[in-house]
Amino acid sequence: MVELLGKPVADAICANLKDSIEELKGKNKIPTLAIVRVGNREDDISYERGARKRFADNNCDTRVVELSADVDQDELEKTIVELNNDSSVDGILLFRPLPKQLSEARIQKLIEGDKDVDCMGLENMARLFAGSKEGFAPCTAQAVIELLHHYDIELKGKKVTVIGRSLVIGKPVAMMLIKENATVTVCHTKTEDLIGECKNADIIVAAAGVAKMVSAEYVKPSSIVIDVGMNVDEAGKLCGDVDFAGISEIVDRITPVPRGVGSVTTSVLLKNTVANAIKSTK
Amino acid sequence: MVELLGKPVADAICANLKDSIEELKGKNKIPTLAIVRVGNREDDISYERGARKRFADNNCDTRVVELSADVDQDELEKTIVELNNDSSVDGILLFRPLPKQLSEARIQKLIEGDKDVDCMGLENMARLFAGSKEGFAPCTAQAVIELLHHYDIELKGKKVTVIGRSLVIGKPVAMMLIKENATVTVCHTKTEDLIGECKNADIIVAAAGVAKMVSAEYVKPSSIVIDVGMNVDEAGKLCGDVDFAGISEIVDRITPVPRGVGSVTTSVLLKNTVANAIKSTK
Repeated sequence: MVELLGKPVADAICANLKDSIEELKGKNKIPTLAIVRVGNREDDISYERGARKRFADNNCDTRVVELSADVDQDELEKTIVELNNDSSVDGILLFRPLPKQLSEARIQKLIEGDKDVDCMGLENMARLFAGSKEGFAPCTAQAVIELLHHYDIELKGKKVTVIGRSLVIGKPVAMMLIKENATVTVCHTKTEDLIGECKNADIIVAAAGVAKMVSAEYVKPSSIVIDVGMNVDEAGKLCGDVDFAGISEIVDRITPVPRGVGSVTTSVLLKNTVANAIKSTK
Repeated sequence: MVELLGKPVADAICANLKDSIEELKGKNKIPTLAIVRVGNREDDISYERGARKRFADNNCDTRVVELSADVDQDELEKTIVELNNDSSVDGILLFRPLPKQLSEARIQKLIEGDKDVDCMGLENMARLFAGSKEGFAPCTAQAVIELLHHYDIELKGKKVTVIGRSLVIGKPVAMMLIKENATVTVCHTKTEDLIGECKNADIIVAAAGVAKMVSAEYVKPSSIVIDVGMNVDEAGKLCGDVDFAGISEIVDRITPVPRGVGSVTTSVLLKNTVANAIKSTK
């Protein structure tokens, strides 16, 4: 078994951006991400910390816009419009889910596609669906693709089973894998023969949100397993959707949790923000 | 073998719309489709004829806007904006592909989502991808779903193999089937084991654009085969992606070509146009 770690992928993405960031600096442009956080959810703050460090380590900027948990829709929309119009902002990340009083649907229409670096808006969803060269995918979905490419895992013609059909991972990663010429099966809670669909696949992308669900019977010796799960197990420890201990000795390659796909996402966020900074200075 | 004909599906859709159309008439609203045709392609004109008849037969209107084959982008965009703003127009259908001098991408952004009854624009693509209740799918993809529902074909948990990944059928029908709780595999020219993926499926949706490709080895006695192909065979006759003569005695249920899915599309166009007329009078 080979463990597919996220850090080398993240490092390679950042190394690739170095020259572009330097060049932008020469044009007095520092790629800048605006992070809009409503309230103080612990996982938002933790992700924010990681993103800020990633940007700082790569000579890029972040700006946190903190709104109170009881902010109203108008105020949130005003914030997004201001950031859309602010030429010093290259990317906008809005943490979700939003508190109940807020409508995500209206923000999806409002956010400027080129600044929508985590694909929350309709414009980038449509681009993703259409297989356009423009636009950005959700960072975690893109991180899966970056990881597969980094480790030279062949996708063309391969059978990939995606477990999960969410708008942030399952469906976008399916669209991207189809574009990469994989044969993609999307499974979910209603799938009758999930084990068969996984066992038949060359690659499994687990994004079900169920701790340690993918067990020994789902895999074979040639399986490549990408675990996008982020759960807490019975001992209170972070774990994925895959029973790592139970299958790691069976499969060919596997991403751990933590230290797998999750380690790549902030680099994708940086990559997307830099891409838009380059576009806006052209 | 049971032949799944399109006409009963189309008739049922229209019968269901009768009361709504009557009610709209009472409000002086006649659901109206604007058909924008660039040039005089034979298949556009043939589809136009079918759509006009369908609307007329159901007491609804069509308005054809004919543009010359060498029209420029500005003129086409002006036409779309006028139709967007015309409150007597409830739906807009623009024939594609467009001549080379025209950019479809700009129209995709311009067309008003609620009038985009064949899902050519970004807004409806995003809604489709997101699984939203709003918006319209491409008529042919929607026709597949209408046909499956009409014949009470169970989708929940079933394995559906879609052959083709186009923006008008393959990808949208996959998204709709996922929403219907089917387990969906999207296959295409790069798929390694297409026969296996089809033979394993409960339902096959063939939208490859290759005449009579799906032959006896792709199916089993329980297969349900939906043929979305529209090709011309060696004898110059219209045929589907399925070798009907070769498999019809093997499979459980199958749509013919012609008289199958294709017979349903103009009713979907009518359904979508009426839906927007209702929305706009509320």
